[in-house]
Amino acid sequence: MQFTAEEIGFMLNGTVEGDPGATVSKLAKIEEASENSLSFLSNPKYEQYLYTTAASVVIVNNDLTISAPVKATLIRVENAYSAFSVLLEKYNTIKLNKAGIEQPSFIHPTAQIGENCYVGAFAYIGPDVKVGNNCKIYPNAYCADNVTLGDNVTLFPGVIVYFDCVIGNNVIIHSGAIIGSDGFGFAPNANGTYTKVSQIGNVIIEDDVEIGSNTTIDRATMGSTIIRKGVKLDNLIQVAHNVEIGANTVIAAQTGISGSTKIGENAVIGGQVGLVGHITVARGSQVQAKSGISRSITEENKKWAGAPATHYNDNMRSQIVYMRLPELEKKISELEKVIAELRKVSDNSM
Amino acid sequence: MQFTAEEIGFMLNGTVEGDPGATVSKLAKIEEASENSLSFLSNPKYEQYLYTTAASVVIVNNDLTISAPVKATLIRVENAYSAFSVLLEKYNTIKLNKAGIEQPSFIHPTAQIGENCYVGAFAYIGPDVKVGNNCKIYPNAYCADNVTLGDNVTLFPGVIVYFDCVIGNNVIIHSGAIIGSDGFGFAPNANGTYTKVSQIGNVIIEDDVEIGSNTTIDRATMGSTIIRKGVKLDNLIQVAHNVEIGANTVIAAQTGISGSTKIGENAVIGGQVGLVGHITVARGSQVQAKSGISRSITEENKKWAGAPATHYNDNMRSQIVYMRLPELEKKISELEKVIAELRKVSDNSM
Amino acid sequence: MQFTAEEIGFMLNGTVEGDPGATVSKLAKIEEASENSLSFLSNPKYEQYLYTTAASVVIVNNDLTISAPVKATLIRVENAYSAFSVLLEKYNTIKLNKAGIEQPSFIHPTAQIGENCYVGAFAYIGPDVKVGNNCKIYPNAYCADNVTLGDNVTLFPGVIVYFDCVIGNNVIIHSGAIIGSDGFGFAPNANGTYTKVSQIGNVIIEDDVEIGSNTTIDRATMGSTIIRKGVKLDNLIQVAHNVEIGANTVIAAQTGISGSTKIGENAVIGGQVGLVGHITVARGSQVQAKSGISRSITEENKKWAGAPATHYNDNMRSQIVYMRLPELEKKISELEKVIAELRKVSDNSM
Repeated sequence: MQFTAEEIGFMLNGTVEGDPGATVSKLAKIEEASENSLSFLSNPKYEQYLYTTAASVVIVNNDLTISAPVKATLIRVENAYSAFSVLLEKYNTIKLNKAGIEQPSFIHPTAQIGENCYVGAFAYIGPDVKVGNNCKIYPNAYCADNVTLGDNVTLFPGVIVYFDCVIGNNVIIHSGAIIGSDGFGFAPNANGTYTKVSQIGNVIIEDDVEIGSNTTIDRATMGSTIIRKGVKLDNLIQVAHNVEIGANTVIAAQTGISGSTKIGENAVIGGQVGLVGHITVARGSQVQAKSGISRSITEENKKWAGAPATHYNDNMRSQIVYMRLPELEKKISELEKVIAELRKVSDNSM
Repeated sequence: MQFTAEEIGFMLNGTVEGDPGATVSKLAKIEEASENSLSFLSNPKYEQYLYTTAASVVIVNNDLTISAPVKATLIRVENAYSAFSVLLEKYNTIKLNKAGIEQPSFIHPTAQIGENCYVGAFAYIGPDVKVGNNCKIYPNAYCADNVTLGDNVTLFPGVIVYFDCVIGNNVIIHSGAIIGSDGFGFAPNANGTYTKVSQIGNVIIEDDVEIGSNTTIDRATMGSTIIRKGVKLDNLIQVAHNVEIGANTVIAAQTGISGSTKIGENAVIGGQVGLVGHITVARGSQVQAKSGISRSITEENKKWAGAPATHYNDNMRSQIVYMRLPELEKKISELEKVIAELRKVSDNSM
Repeated sequence: MQFTAEEIGFMLNGTVEGDPGATVSKLAKIEEASENSLSFLSNPKYEQYLYTTAASVVIVNNDLTISAPVKATLIRVENAYSAFSVLLEKYNTIKLNKAGIEQPSFIHPTAQIGENCYVGAFAYIGPDVKVGNNCKIYPNAYCADNVTLGDNVTLFPGVIVYFDCVIGNNVIIHSGAIIGSDGFGFAPNANGTYTKVSQIGNVIIEDDVEIGSNTTIDRATMGSTIIRKGVKLDNLIQVAHNVEIGANTVIAAQTGISGSTKIGENAVIGGQVGLVGHITVARGSQVQAKSGISRSITEENKKWAGAPATHYNDNMRSQIVYMRLPELEKKISELEKVIAELRKVSDNSM
């Protein structure tokens, strides 16, 4: 794809200053841009880069005053940042603009596919699956029997959805994510072996959720594992059976949530956090990376850290002392010596 | 699937009380059940729910005495819990009742497939692979050259088994699990680069093992990485080359086991645990989530916690003091001041 | 595959002692070898096994003197270890000797495939993809639009490469690894929801890199996530958007690197380590497993441990005191009592 400054100015309803025929073929930050890049300047503290950038075209705010010569062609708009975001999104839409049914793919005769969908080669759509409109099911993705997808759902290559799972509208699931595999449920026997507990529930993913690569979400034993509206999950996260994650909660990579735990709305959970099973985490909780949540959190909107986790500030204080522990131990030894002497003195003086 | 109370009563050899024509189409816990649900009551402390549940049919024990009006149709059996478990399993068997060879799939002419197997579309079965009877190889699963599967093996969609690996009977492997990829072995060179050490061993998985989604088990450098009979592995676990996991050991999600480590039988290892390489962990060991096992454990049947792990109770005590560290440090400062004063007094009095 | 001692002796330019017709069909360590195994003896401390091994053929050094009867056929060479390594590599090359285009596979008409490549069944090669010579793209692997692969690249089954990513020469990527999925970028809105930030950058993987199973490497928001020459990544690692990993750095399983963090050359990072975003880690840093790197490391070639990480030796000292914390607390209580008494005495004596 290649565009001229003039074409972009027209798209953004902006004013072109400089060569309207300057061409761009990629998007870049102003401080990293090379020739043929389109960039933007929004934050005044980056203004210096405007005079040195190799970008061919830069989008700037209408009210920007130039204080030195500029090589790049400028496009002036009301809000440079939001104009650039619009271009980013358009770029992405063009990049991901797949359509039609590629062959060979497997679509069971009882499956229903909505309008304007993409089904890639080697994708598998099983019996009784319902796919809404404008969905993209990439190559090697798999939807088992009776799966339901809403509208505007993207399953990137290699996504696996087990039977009976329900996925809402505008959901994006990245490659290698596994939705609806069996929960980890085994009943111990007297002889040390285990008997599998059948996992017959499902996973429900509500609207506007995004799920990262190789994340795993297990089906419920009975009932549903539920990912509420607007949740964003990063890569390599483990969500166990019967977990519920509240609306607009965001969780970073490699965190694990044990069975039946419920996380409230608008929580922010760092990477590599572990949560034990059968607890609740209050809405708005913020959990530092690598923490271990070992009991329910009932206070809303608080920050937590450590394993086991405590209030963030308390934990920071303990952490600082932890680093001084050898010094502390030495002080205690010295105190013991001094006191032993004082005692001798005191005994002698009696 | 829809059944009447009468049909279920017949299946379970139970007695129907109420409307024998009541229909059910799903299974649910008594406290969560909606209309058309089949539920059960086994634990007396849940009896209250019997009088309020929306379930259409409830399985109860023969000896249950009713103390209030019940809307649901009851089915009386000897043991309500085990009767319900039987139904769960039947339900699951029907749900996973796949058979036949779907097209297009790839089965090499030299591969042998047993009786009554399912091979899904886009599944790949390479040269010299041997598949036992009653196996299910779902779509997009892959068995490389010379892989052996026993009877009743399930490879869910997207499971990858590298060449020469051996899988026993009744093994279930969930989607995205990778069996037999190269161990992480590199020899350092003088100039800072690394040379790959060829990994020519394999992975052996014995009978009755279940492996979770996106878990990775590396092949041995030479010899075998071995998962013994009855082991249950959760999702996103890392098992490095030449590891051996003893029979009936259970490991929770996101745990990592470094190269050549041997874990004994009947161990229970929590989530996000890390084990260093070349150690042994005694049979029956129980390891708390997030622990780090940095040396061999020789005592059997003990509980461990912490990173580095110590005896569970010792670690709990240290954890409690850890949270009081700032307080402790303050105490020490105060003691220092008091002693400094006492010393002055003592010096003066001499 | 089966070879005689004579054939192997010829391959290695060695001298056969014993039965030249002894056959071998596998490679094994001398202490674990069974019949028909080929083994080697290099380290003198393993010499005892030479007299008891079940191996049919053993490669030994020219200068080895035998001190007891040996059942196996020996092959004498200049350097037994390097001769065996040569065989390991040959064995592996034969095992992985795939060639040709299997059907059904998907190769877009605009894709370019070099000479002597393998494309497995159900592999997908999208529009404008460029594949170099001697590449192996296994079944169910996926290369999206405009991906570039150098020469001698292996994508094992199920590897997914998103659009625009660039992969150098001699790169090995193991099954289930995801290259170029969206970075985890969301802009918070006033009402608690999030808006996705388009991720339009790519991933660049330089020459001689190996990437483990189910590892995820996200594309940059803008610009590139970069894995430099010679980097070795283990399984289940998370590499976030805009990260850069320096040449010949080695990272163990389940480690996570947050967005925009730069790791220097020749670093060695253990398993389950977490690194926060927007920091730099100096070249040659060695980080103990399970550490948490929460700020930039500017000193080169140092060892680090703990979460938050400190100098390795400092952390070891704190760890030791941590285990004695209950004892320490007791000491402080005792000191307090003694001092209270001393104070009484001192008060009385004044």
